[in-house]
Amino acid sequence: MNSPYPSTLLENAVNEFARLPGIGRKSSLRLVLHLLRQDEESVARFVESILRLTQEVKYCSSCHNISDTEVCSICADKTRDKAVVCVVENIKEVMAIEKTVQFNGLYHVLGGIISPIDGIGPSDLEIASLEERVKSGGIREVILALSATMEGDTTNFYIFRKLQTYNVKVSIIARGVSIGDEIEYADEVTLGRSILNRTPFDESYKLLSK
Amino acid sequence: MNSPYPSTLLENAVNEFARLPGIGRKSSLRLVLHLLRQDEESVARFVESILRLTQEVKYCSSCHNISDTEVCSICADKTRDKAVVCVVENIKEVMAIEKTVQFNGLYHVLGGIISPIDGIGPSDLEIASLEERVKSGGIREVILALSATMEGDTTNFYIFRKLQTYNVKVSIIARGVSIGDEIEYADEVTLGRSILNRTPFDESYKLLSK
Repeated sequence: MNSPYPSTLLENAVNEFARLPGIGRKSSLRLVLHLLRQDEESVARFVESILRLTQEVKYCSSCHNISDTEVCSICADKTRDKAVVCVVENIKEVMAIEKTVQFNGLYHVLGGIISPIDGIGPSDLEIASLEERVKSGGIREVILALSATMEGDTTNFYIFRKLQTYNVKVSIIARGVSIGDEIEYADEVTLGRSILNRTPFDESYKLLSK
Repeated sequence: MNSPYPSTLLENAVNEFARLPGIGRKSSLRLVLHLLRQDEESVARFVESILRLTQEVKYCSSCHNISDTEVCSICADKTRDKAVVCVVENIKEVMAIEKTVQFNGLYHVLGGIISPIDGIGPSDLEIASLEERVKSGGIREVILALSATMEGDTTNFYIFRKLQTYNVKVSIIARGVSIGDEIEYADEVTLGRSILNRTPFDESYKLLSK
């Protein structure tokens, strides 16, 4: 017995699951054996949900977020402020910001960030379409909400330079000490940044109590 | 926006993945977005591996382990001792024991253990077929290798009583202090058991050096 798996069908399924991010061979086997115990209908439903998503998925023609419709529900929402556009890396960040209930503008989903190591350049991202959106007018402010990493910073600077020629305010989300964190344990870069970017006390307090 | 997901296709896929054991909604979204980034071919391969396994899987007619063939490769192996049968809960335990390279007999896969809470009784498991195997002769020893839990013990006793009427030795894998464990930190039930089940020193040592 060369392979530890008693069946090549089983081994193939385990290999496929183990390709998913964060799934090792042990969890993969557990997941596969779980599916094997399900009835045919459940497995069919599982498989169909994947196939339908990957084959029928649409992206909003305006903000490029995943959507069921040509224009996503956020872009189509008449109560939202169309003059403010928040630039994010992916749909996960849209969901995270929506959860805060602190933002009432629209989004622009880049589909990634500039990362030379991974071979991702500006042309692989929805940056030209962001410029198009700004150029066509009606946008007052673009908020950059990318990760506070080197790749995020590179992308921020690239976008900032592209948008500088237009009459639009470009802002970036605050970087500082996380709420609930003890100053003693905050890393020095974050702490330094939080001092440089300090906010008038009453203003900060007003924002929180809103 | 009632649902946090911008697309029902996405939501369905996330729901399906989140049904898998040990996968929360956050990991589920990560896995689904990963699949969404793959090309059509990779997704098709993933889906097919699941469908083929669940639709075409076979179980060995003798030991009930998952197999590609009517009789599994372990049961068909002429170099293995057919007179010794190790009773295990599932295929994962077969793989674990095979990895030790300490067992050269055959297996009998129950497909679970007796668990009244989960509604699993003796008739849901491959216990009758084990009795059949013993009854038809040629088996000298049955080794019980089930989990050291209450359910495992219940199943052990049930099988032991069923096999008592036949001329077969029924043994159980040793329970004791794990190798590498410090006595100080071993739980008292295990430690007590390891004293009751103590082995002659030279015998234990002989086994290890084999």
